[in-house]
Amino acid sequence: MQVALLGGTGDIGEGLALRLARDTDHEIVIGSRDEAKAAEAAESYEQTLADHGVTATIASGENSEVTATANIAILAVPAYYLADTINAVESQLDGTILVSPAVGMKRDDDGLRYNPPGVGSVTQLAANTAPDDVPVVGAFHNLAAGRLSNLDADLDWDVLVVGDDQSAKESVCSLTDAIDGLRPLDVGGLGNAPEVEGLTPLLINLAANNDGMHDLGVKFW
Amino acid sequence: MQVALLGGTGDIGEGLALRLARDTDHEIVIGSRDEAKAAEAAESYEQTLADHGVTATIASGENSEVTATANIAILAVPAYYLADTINAVESQLDGTILVSPAVGMKRDDDGLRYNPPGVGSVTQLAANTAPDDVPVVGAFHNLAAGRLSNLDADLDWDVLVVGDDQSAKESVCSLTDAIDGLRPLDVGGLGNAPEVEGLTPLLINLAANNDGMHDLGVKFW
Repeated sequence: MQVALLGGTGDIGEGLALRLARDTDHEIVIGSRDEAKAAEAAESYEQTLADHGVTATIASGENSEVTATANIAILAVPAYYLADTINAVESQLDGTILVSPAVGMKRDDDGLRYNPPGVGSVTQLAANTAPDDVPVVGAFHNLAAGRLSNLDADLDWDVLVVGDDQSAKESVCSLTDAIDGLRPLDVGGLGNAPEVEGLTPLLINLAANNDGMHDLGVKFW
Repeated sequence: MQVALLGGTGDIGEGLALRLARDTDHEIVIGSRDEAKAAEAAESYEQTLADHGVTATIASGENSEVTATANIAILAVPAYYLADTINAVESQLDGTILVSPAVGMKRDDDGLRYNPPGVGSVTQLAANTAPDDVPVVGAFHNLAAGRLSNLDADLDWDVLVVGDDQSAKESVCSLTDAIDGLRPLDVGGLGNAPEVEGLTPLLINLAANNDGMHDLGVKFW
């Protein structure tokens, strides 16, 4: 399977690319608005993997180019670029599953607040922006980029997956499950995305208020 | 120290009463609007503890009566009774720390939504309702009542604690830490309560969508 990381030059894209390349047999492709930046990132990720004894080829290209051949395209972009990114690749989405990990947050005096768009969640915004026949799945919202991209770090985290297309959701769960230390958990339909996204500012507030806790993830039991 | 569970006849009150009575030396008192119901619950909790080899005396009384002598009063009532309960005991709050575990939720087609009051969170509503000199701490929002009140079950859960009064928050953290299997974590000021409370519908949605998962709690790392 081919997995494209749109905006894959950013920190969440890096972590997912490294872990997917190390732990799975999927073909990993880094996308960016800027083809040269994508190529540079892919090369740097290959080097990081080589430093950890992993030989992997990571392809790259402009976002819409890499979307054309991808089975799963992960929107590894900040929430405020999400709609623009989907619009830019829209014509290339043919049987592609779109994955939305972005979260809207704002800072106040106490810490970070969950700041969803008017449609209820960023994942819902992605679904509303994508063409009707493109399945959108929310996942990877709560991954701390620092630990994710550190291949020496163990994760042992849960990944919360939401979506209305059961088959697409299962594909994303399988992809997640193939990464060492990640356990996918189904949180139901897209309407349940707000509480999933709202966990991200909580993780950051927790790290800010507890010495020795940083790059936090979560495990449910 | 004396710990009063206002509305302690309900399921969260039961779990906290049983665990506090078993695991700590604090004096546990069950409060209710109805003194007889409180007495009945206290007796039943003593019996449950006796069945588990624990001899404990659990006192009881009407909510305002038990508040008068309590060092910590836990508002173990549904969110929609919170303000009324605080108003009813207000004159007895003298150096008492009020603890708010309530969460506002509503159901839609996908599952449970976090449904905060206009002031941002139920914990903030408790703080706004209580007299200015009464410290309000948010805690115990995310405890699954079923597992909490089952003394045969191990917890190994984190308890998220929010509040603007550092000393009061530390007292609640100490109380939490004394219960086997609960680890208190500071989530900062009252403004951070929405994301803490929003975790509760997420836990319930997770249980609803994953076979074999129920009475969920959470562990951060």
